[in-house]
Amino acid sequence: VERPRLQGMAKNTSMRWRLPLVCLLWEVAMIVLFGVFVRFGAEADAHWEEDKREMNLTSDIENDFYFRYPSFQDVHVMIFVGFGFLMTFLKRYGFGAVGFNFLLAAFGIQWALLMQGWFHSFKDGKILIGVENLINADFCVGSVCIAFGAILGKTSPIQLLVMTLFQVTLFSVNEYILLNLLHVKDAGGSMTIHTFGAYFGLTVTRVLYRPNLEQSKDKQGSVYHSDLFAMIGTLYLWMYWPSFNSAISDHGDAQHRSAINTYCSLAACVLTTMAFSSMLQKKGKLDMVHIQNATLAGGVAVGTSAEMMLTPYGSLIVGSISGIVSTVGYVYFTPFLESRLHIQDTCGIHNLHAMPGLIGGIVGAITAAAATEDVYGKEGFIKAFDFTGVYQTRTPSIQGGFQAAGIVVSLLMAFAGGAIVGGILKLPIWGDAAAENCFEDDVYWEVPEDEESDVYHMHNPDKPGSP
Amino acid sequence: VERPRLQGMAKNTSMRWRLPLVCLLWEVAMIVLFGVFVRFGAEADAHWEEDKREMNLTSDIENDFYFRYPSFQDVHVMIFVGFGFLMTFLKRYGFGAVGFNFLLAAFGIQWALLMQGWFHSFKDGKILIGVENLINADFCVGSVCIAFGAILGKTSPIQLLVMTLFQVTLFSVNEYILLNLLHVKDAGGSMTIHTFGAYFGLTVTRVLYRPNLEQSKDKQGSVYHSDLFAMIGTLYLWMYWPSFNSAISDHGDAQHRSAINTYCSLAACVLTTMAFSSMLQKKGKLDMVHIQNATLAGGVAVGTSAEMMLTPYGSLIVGSISGIVSTVGYVYFTPFLESRLHIQDTCGIHNLHAMPGLIGGIVGAITAAAATEDVYGKEGFIKAFDFTGVYQTRTPSIQGGFQAAGIVVSLLMAFAGGAIVGGILKLPIWGDAAAENCFEDDVYWEVPEDEESDVYHMHNPDKPGSP
Amino acid sequence: VERPRLQGMAKNTSMRWRLPLVCLLWEVAMIVLFGVFVRFGAEADAHWEEDKREMNLTSDIENDFYFRYPSFQDVHVMIFVGFGFLMTFLKRYGFGAVGFNFLLAAFGIQWALLMQGWFHSFKDGKILIGVENLINADFCVGSVCIAFGAILGKTSPIQLLVMTLFQVTLFSVNEYILLNLLHVKDAGGSMTIHTFGAYFGLTVTRVLYRPNLEQSKDKQGSVYHSDLFAMIGTLYLWMYWPSFNSAISDHGDAQHRSAINTYCSLAACVLTTMAFSSMLQKKGKLDMVHIQNATLAGGVAVGTSAEMMLTPYGSLIVGSISGIVSTVGYVYFTPFLESRLHIQDTCGIHNLHAMPGLIGGIVGAITAAAATEDVYGKEGFIKAFDFTGVYQTRTPSIQGGFQAAGIVVSLLMAFAGGAIVGGILKLPIWGDAAAENCFEDDVYWEVPEDEESDVYHMHNPDKPGSP
Repeated sequence: VERPRLQGMAKNTSMRWRLPLVCLLWEVAMIVLFGVFVRFGAEADAHWEEDKREMNLTSDIENDFYFRYPSFQDVHVMIFVGFGFLMTFLKRYGFGAVGFNFLLAAFGIQWALLMQGWFHSFKDGKILIGVENLINADFCVGSVCIAFGAILGKTSPIQLLVMTLFQVTLFSVNEYILLNLLHVKDAGGSMTIHTFGAYFGLTVTRVLYRPNLEQSKDKQGSVYHSDLFAMIGTLYLWMYWPSFNSAISDHGDAQHRSAINTYCSLAACVLTTMAFSSMLQKKGKLDMVHIQNATLAGGVAVGTSAEMMLTPYGSLIVGSISGIVSTVGYVYFTPFLESRLHIQDTCGIHNLHAMPGLIGGIVGAITAAAATEDVYGKEGFIKAFDFTGVYQTRTPSIQGGFQAAGIVVSLLMAFAGGAIVGGILKLPIWGDAAAENCFEDDVYWEVPEDEESDVYHMHNPDKPGSP
Repeated sequence: VERPRLQGMAKNTSMRWRLPLVCLLWEVAMIVLFGVFVRFGAEADAHWEEDKREMNLTSDIENDFYFRYPSFQDVHVMIFVGFGFLMTFLKRYGFGAVGFNFLLAAFGIQWALLMQGWFHSFKDGKILIGVENLINADFCVGSVCIAFGAILGKTSPIQLLVMTLFQVTLFSVNEYILLNLLHVKDAGGSMTIHTFGAYFGLTVTRVLYRPNLEQSKDKQGSVYHSDLFAMIGTLYLWMYWPSFNSAISDHGDAQHRSAINTYCSLAACVLTTMAFSSMLQKKGKLDMVHIQNATLAGGVAVGTSAEMMLTPYGSLIVGSISGIVSTVGYVYFTPFLESRLHIQDTCGIHNLHAMPGLIGGIVGAITAAAATEDVYGKEGFIKAFDFTGVYQTRTPSIQGGFQAAGIVVSLLMAFAGGAIVGGILKLPIWGDAAAENCFEDDVYWEVPEDEESDVYHMHNPDKPGSP
Repeated sequence: VERPRLQGMAKNTSMRWRLPLVCLLWEVAMIVLFGVFVRFGAEADAHWEEDKREMNLTSDIENDFYFRYPSFQDVHVMIFVGFGFLMTFLKRYGFGAVGFNFLLAAFGIQWALLMQGWFHSFKDGKILIGVENLINADFCVGSVCIAFGAILGKTSPIQLLVMTLFQVTLFSVNEYILLNLLHVKDAGGSMTIHTFGAYFGLTVTRVLYRPNLEQSKDKQGSVYHSDLFAMIGTLYLWMYWPSFNSAISDHGDAQHRSAINTYCSLAACVLTTMAFSSMLQKKGKLDMVHIQNATLAGGVAVGTSAEMMLTPYGSLIVGSISGIVSTVGYVYFTPFLESRLHIQDTCGIHNLHAMPGLIGGIVGAITAAAATEDVYGKEGFIKAFDFTGVYQTRTPSIQGGFQAAGIVVSLLMAFAGGAIVGGILKLPIWGDAAAENCFEDDVYWEVPEDEESDVYHMHNPDKPGSP
């Protein structure tokens, strides 16, 4: 089997001037914009001593830092190690998976701090940031990491940065519409993060359809150790998901409840995933692709409702269903999407984020619509759905309707945004690789010689790996 | 060297119907039982706003969530990444190690929430759960992960689920006897988790003795990278053990003290492990098996006493001794147990959990018996041992006696339970593999072709890996 | 290519008696010293119930444990997994990287608890420890882990222990001079940890210069999977650095602010690192060495100033610059240091810790000198710089001068200490390996047979790996 020499590639994939230019210009822009706009919020500012007195706080422990920082760190791990390593399953794209995820997330969180700041933390001409802003920025790039999963291995780092720039912008607009205009609850982001991020990514990969992708088919699989690296990502996502869904919930019972619901949903999801993974394979063997991905669907699917009174058994039901849907998706939908709809979804984000995200939005709408003062308590009811001010008269069923509207808006934003951004990424200036060099680190990374030859030449000892 | 073709196996190891059936039936049962019994505890319920006022709490930070959630997440990592990756040291059983650990733990925590809930959190016909229940459920399956270490590579996933079901049940009964009937202190679980879990697992593996296991001897070792994967597990267990031992201690000084004692014990344990690992090997080279395991014995051995006034130097002594005992165990006891007592202990849990667990129980009994009002303070003394109500008149020496009784009860429960469960697992219906296919992922997992051939055929280039 | 047989080594590298002797004697000394000196601090002692009343604390949540324990655990992960795995990039030194790092850190934290305790927590003849002492001990060995990076692969474990012993001692003296005598602020340790640790290590490696190190050049590189293991270390260091820099800051706004500044600096650093990594390579490909290391420089460079009012845009500027300096360092300075100054710096700590550490010290001095009551608020200003007691009259510009003096003192301590300790380590009694056996686990570790032969013999199938 002849492997195309990388030197002979038709396309110019050199990043030497393009990538530095984009990164440096961007960073200069960030410095200027942060200089103009971003300041410490009250709880991170040295004036806090005085503010504390004014707010009648008797202890530093009342600082929001202590309510949210541990969850923030867990979310941070999910974005960088979780998503990064989850995508290392490909045999020859580990550097790209973890390295590009690192790049786009570091790039995106800066822009997200600004975009979300303008919408939510803007006061007297300044964006005032605290730990909650850091969490929200991580959440926002989380949606980009999801979209990255669909196009993994097929794009240049510049394309990823361009996509990140636009997606963070659109994410923030969509989030503003949902949270502020529709007054929708979505603390764990089933709609804003997962539904939006996944359908955005799927639309982009549809636009970027590569008809000759089977030329790099030999590199689309995993090897034994790459599957273990991916399990690191899986487990950190799975373990810390209770922190993800509870990180920005109200202090006290809401954070507590979110963590419990998510814990239960994820546990159930593992069992149904294993069951269907075994059942849908002729010899009944388990498939690492399912274990790595579908076990996480339970976290996605309670993203909206975790902070509500979903109850532990409700969580088990949602987790069970999402594990089944996701596993079935990997077996039947992904091949269908690729062959019929020309949607090449490298990581199967349709199964892990899109469908479970929709389930999450729907479960959230139903749970909100079913809320009663009896279940929440009079004060708890108002607090949970923030039925104050202009929303004082909103009823649960109306809230359910708005929640459902949030799903629709997220979908529309994702399709429209994905189509436009996909079109931009299709321009022939971004340095993406030819089809036969997809899923190959060697295009954009210095790769150590030896190991490369291990994989390619091991059964051809007469073809030396290193000259 | 002829490798037996997997197709030619005498035993039917297909999981296609058995595993899905067990998982799905179980999950349905869980949903029903959770629906009937499990509700949010007061601190996770939306009525918390009202409860807070009744309890005169002025801040949400008083919610137990903020006292225990960071420790919970650390414990969660220990169970899923710690135990999971610790067992990936085998060259061809990485998927099984991390994947089956994932399966049994997710399965077990649901049942543990119920079992422990009935014993400890049952009120007006409902189990009221909060973050402490999540920690306790993780602890409970921790004992199953330990037992899994003894039978690693030799059982089918169904056997693991059956074992989990019974072991969680017995664990909860044993825990109830110790904590409630004997009024024993064991926050880090030297007795309830380690002694019970390890001797249970050792008894099971004794009953399941495989006389022909040397047929898969070539797969019982590690390769270079599998040893590094295992070190991920080791280090997360080691680093987070202070959280493990302090997670359910009393708020304040007790949690603080537990973390310090465990930190000290583990540091000392590393040094004595390294010393004995080098000393007991002819050429003085260090053995990764010892570093991966015996360095953790110090955490096990202060499990009972960490929240007591063990003192930092006491912790160093306990840690030093347990590192020595554990390393010596790997060199001398494990081969003895296998050849003479027919106990095939894949991970050496006898050295890492059984003996250090016993040490932990004994140290706990001594530390309790030696307690004085002078050392603890009048109030601290009562609080530390909960000498209130019917236990108001209990003296330290009597407490020490009860602690010692707790060790004996745990041992008896482990032996009896292990014998019965081992007998059940011996039934020829669970689909376990033949001796020559032990320690081999290929039996229950889809394994990528290439890497498999890397390991088996690399020195036989004329025998192609993929047809 | 003939590989020298390890049996034929000229040097005696057997650790069989030396390593156990050092470890065991040391541990006995630790037990004695801890027995004489170390006790629980008030917040970890069972008398806390009474102290709480005296201090008018109404809740256990006021215990310092809850302010710092989550950060402590993050720091703990950075020391053991972060530094340990960061150094696993070498193809044949993964056991040594992660294992020796484990050994020296466990060894060092015990001695650090004593040394730092005598200087900072000594009261009535006893060292009273709490969670802050654990963090500081971790910080102290952090500086040893940094120095280890320079000599990685070239020293015996005994040399590492000897170095640790002396470096921890000198670290504590230097820290005392800076924090107590010069009244310098350095919560994230740009000076005390990074500048001191790195120049100490560089001096040691200069003294231990090996002229024939090119004999093991084939083992100084990475393989594909070793680079992925190293990324685990990188990411954990990167993600948890906000905890590192905020762990021992004042409660409240200072911890909050440190985390935000560090988060911003690190995000910017990733972008400039990627930009320069691509720009400085002929084909524009990214180099994993830069991604693994230079992306972290932003955390080092705000170590001193993170808790000050550096502001988010200030952090972006510092992070951007340090990423550039560090990447340029890897490309140009490291080869220069080796060829001209005979400084063989295995991990490039000069780029990751030394230069960014200096930047951090300078930025800290400038930020302190530029402080005003307007920016900090009257009370915040006094609290931030602790301008109380004898320091009541200190002005920002004088503080800036003292900060600068702190850099100089740290450098002098590092050079002098490194020279002396390097001289001691040069004695021919410590069992270090010959030049041709550097970067090779086989010297001090039992290495599984198969994998070793995978790497060496794969292209020579007629040379069987296992006899």
